[in-house]
Amino acid sequence: MSFSKKPVKGMTDFPPADMRLRESVLAEIKRTYAQYGFAQIETPCMEHIGNLTSKQGGDNEKLIFKVQKRGAALARAWESGDRDELVDNGLRYDLTVPLARFYANNKEQLPSPFRALQIGPVWRADQPAKGRFRQFVQCDIDVLGDATNLAEIELITATSKALSRVLSAAGIKEFTVNVNDRRILQAAALRAGFAEDEVGSALITLDKLDKIGFDGVRAELLENGTSEQVADAYLDLFRDAKRGTFSAAFCNRVDADGLEGISQNLDAIIAAAATLTDEGVYVEFNPTLVRGMGYYTGPIFEVTVDGLGISIAGGGRYDEMIGKFSGENVCACGFSIGFERIITMLKDAGVTSLGEAHDEGAVAFLIDGKTITWQRREALKQAQELRDQGRCVAVLPMRKNMKRQIQTLEAEGFTEFVKVYAD
Amino acid sequence: MSFSKKPVKGMTDFPPADMRLRESVLAEIKRTYAQYGFAQIETPCMEHIGNLTSKQGGDNEKLIFKVQKRGAALARAWESGDRDELVDNGLRYDLTVPLARFYANNKEQLPSPFRALQIGPVWRADQPAKGRFRQFVQCDIDVLGDATNLAEIELITATSKALSRVLSAAGIKEFTVNVNDRRILQAAALRAGFAEDEVGSALITLDKLDKIGFDGVRAELLENGTSEQVADAYLDLFRDAKRGTFSAAFCNRVDADGLEGISQNLDAIIAAAATLTDEGVYVEFNPTLVRGMGYYTGPIFEVTVDGLGISIAGGGRYDEMIGKFSGENVCACGFSIGFERIITMLKDAGVTSLGEAHDEGAVAFLIDGKTITWQRREALKQAQELRDQGRCVAVLPMRKNMKRQIQTLEAEGFTEFVKVYAD
Repeated sequence: MSFSKKPVKGMTDFPPADMRLRESVLAEIKRTYAQYGFAQIETPCMEHIGNLTSKQGGDNEKLIFKVQKRGAALARAWESGDRDELVDNGLRYDLTVPLARFYANNKEQLPSPFRALQIGPVWRADQPAKGRFRQFVQCDIDVLGDATNLAEIELITATSKALSRVLSAAGIKEFTVNVNDRRILQAAALRAGFAEDEVGSALITLDKLDKIGFDGVRAELLENGTSEQVADAYLDLFRDAKRGTFSAAFCNRVDADGLEGISQNLDAIIAAAATLTDEGVYVEFNPTLVRGMGYYTGPIFEVTVDGLGISIAGGGRYDEMIGKFSGENVCACGFSIGFERIITMLKDAGVTSLGEAHDEGAVAFLIDGKTITWQRREALKQAQELRDQGRCVAVLPMRKNMKRQIQTLEAEGFTEFVKVYAD
Repeated sequence: MSFSKKPVKGMTDFPPADMRLRESVLAEIKRTYAQYGFAQIETPCMEHIGNLTSKQGGDNEKLIFKVQKRGAALARAWESGDRDELVDNGLRYDLTVPLARFYANNKEQLPSPFRALQIGPVWRADQPAKGRFRQFVQCDIDVLGDATNLAEIELITATSKALSRVLSAAGIKEFTVNVNDRRILQAAALRAGFAEDEVGSALITLDKLDKIGFDGVRAELLENGTSEQVADAYLDLFRDAKRGTFSAAFCNRVDADGLEGISQNLDAIIAAAATLTDEGVYVEFNPTLVRGMGYYTGPIFEVTVDGLGISIAGGGRYDEMIGKFSGENVCACGFSIGFERIITMLKDAGVTSLGEAHDEGAVAFLIDGKTITWQRREALKQAQELRDQGRCVAVLPMRKNMKRQIQTLEAEGFTEFVKVYAD
């Protein structure tokens, strides 16, 4: 018999200490989003393989865990000699594809706009690394069916509030919501002289600015066949562009048709969100924010913690994606918190739980002996009464090394010990 | 592009109304088990295929959703021409196999006894039917490393409390915890004249007593080759055996070696649990309770709601299973709530949520117009202030048919509406 003690490669067991932190963070996130009127939904972890491989998921489609057909269908597929025929389902690699299917399937009974909260595991067969797992939790809020920028304002305000509440436990009181618009990025690239079909590649290179700097970006652009003239015109647009301001100045510099309305819309979002978020939350136009996913069609956002240089939440407007799935256009906008990154930050800061799970301290009854005695029954009753009063009580057999047992229990959060000896 | 709107066969989308009920029931179950000192853990949804196919899972092993290898490993497996080589993982079909692996993997850092709570989805490729899904949630508590009957008493008491709290919302105030011991069942079968290797089959037939009655059981026994003499001796043991009493009378009638201690242990569990559970919870010896799984080694339990004739929770002691997995013997005992059945009962009774999610009533701001006006900013600020006071507030674009919009929102739980018109 082949028995493996370790979890499947890249996946994690969560012992009680981890679960206390994770559950308390999830509770705070759920509480916050409920306050903003987002309604929780859930979809199955498995999706039709056809839905997952429709080219909407970009590179994530290469990382799908595929589920085999069963029984006679599997036997037929095997006989057919076609490898692709062997699978019918796959584990979801994000929560956006299932949301699009859910909305198409349940639209009639959902309000418009529909404000959805999804929390659940997703799977990607990525190379595991520190903080990168093959099963990980995503927390997404999405507004479907709202074409106005109320959607963006509410998404930014709600996500900022959830992050403020959670991160303050780690002593992190400041973070930045970077905002940009895919249409501004596109207009800037075209204005500098890129051809339409070069824009995507130019943006992928620009996205590396934080890591490789202006010289690095310039070198990569030239390597990809961009002329010196276009590369320099492009980089000059960004070179002294200020973050922390509205988009108007940058858009004036780009000076492209139709950009004015886009810029006004974005600045209205920034102004409203800046007013509504807590102190320490900076909502800023960032002209070099790109966001990887190709499906964004308008405003995009990303939350970074200064000093750490990592992104802990991201999102944007993706008005065309649901239509591509379901054939019916529905405008949509979403914001996703990187739950595992938040947990890593809290653990690194020594946070064990957001709330006080055991406000009054948990009680452990330690029972000696193996027989039911009069004393033991009394102890069990007493434990029950304490529970009825709302206390947390565990009734446990007393170990020979009681001192060590108590130390272990104290580490678990037990503060009171009742020792019960048999007659 | 092949896009399917429906979820994968046998699996379910949960819209907000379903999620409100499910989340409120899960919260109550978690709160109760925490009060009894059970610590929540979590394992990945995927397990090594070898762990899932080690013959511990009985028929469930035939229902595994198998996950294909990826990349070069898949290509090699395909070349090998061996179908079994194509998969490396599978989705878990219960929470007990992962618990055994978890315990073997994390034993050093866990207290002894270890009291675990697990809540999570499991998958079985069963034929879908009403109330039977291919992805469903299990809620298990287990005590590992406690050989005394404190484990059984605590498991029964905690599970009964969780069920009392949840079911009272559906007006169900009475249910029965049926208790038996696999060793009594075995002794009775041997005593009636079955050979050792016939006991398993005899128990499977006895398990159908509720459905097919004494005549049906007798007929099936004879069909399986049991002599009339053995069948009648066997059934006579149960024919006028009373439920609702201790096991002593039944065990005296069976009159087999070693049964006295087993009976005393079981009656001590029943006596203690009967004292500790709420009014309306009946803890009773039931000599014909079998429980399907072969891995049970001692006391077994099952909760039934009188009148409904369905089991809503089940468990028992399985001292040898973890050793078979990990090579190291660990005594173990568990109790599992049939979460989906509970949800079905609550929905049938018209229960929409256990708690009051919106105690004060949620507020919807309906915003007219498309531009950011002075009034709109004020409205957003006002919404934010209400949220800071703990209220639930959604800010939404006003629809042309506002009357219908408000009706939809009222159905979602919104009770106050603030209408904001643009200048």
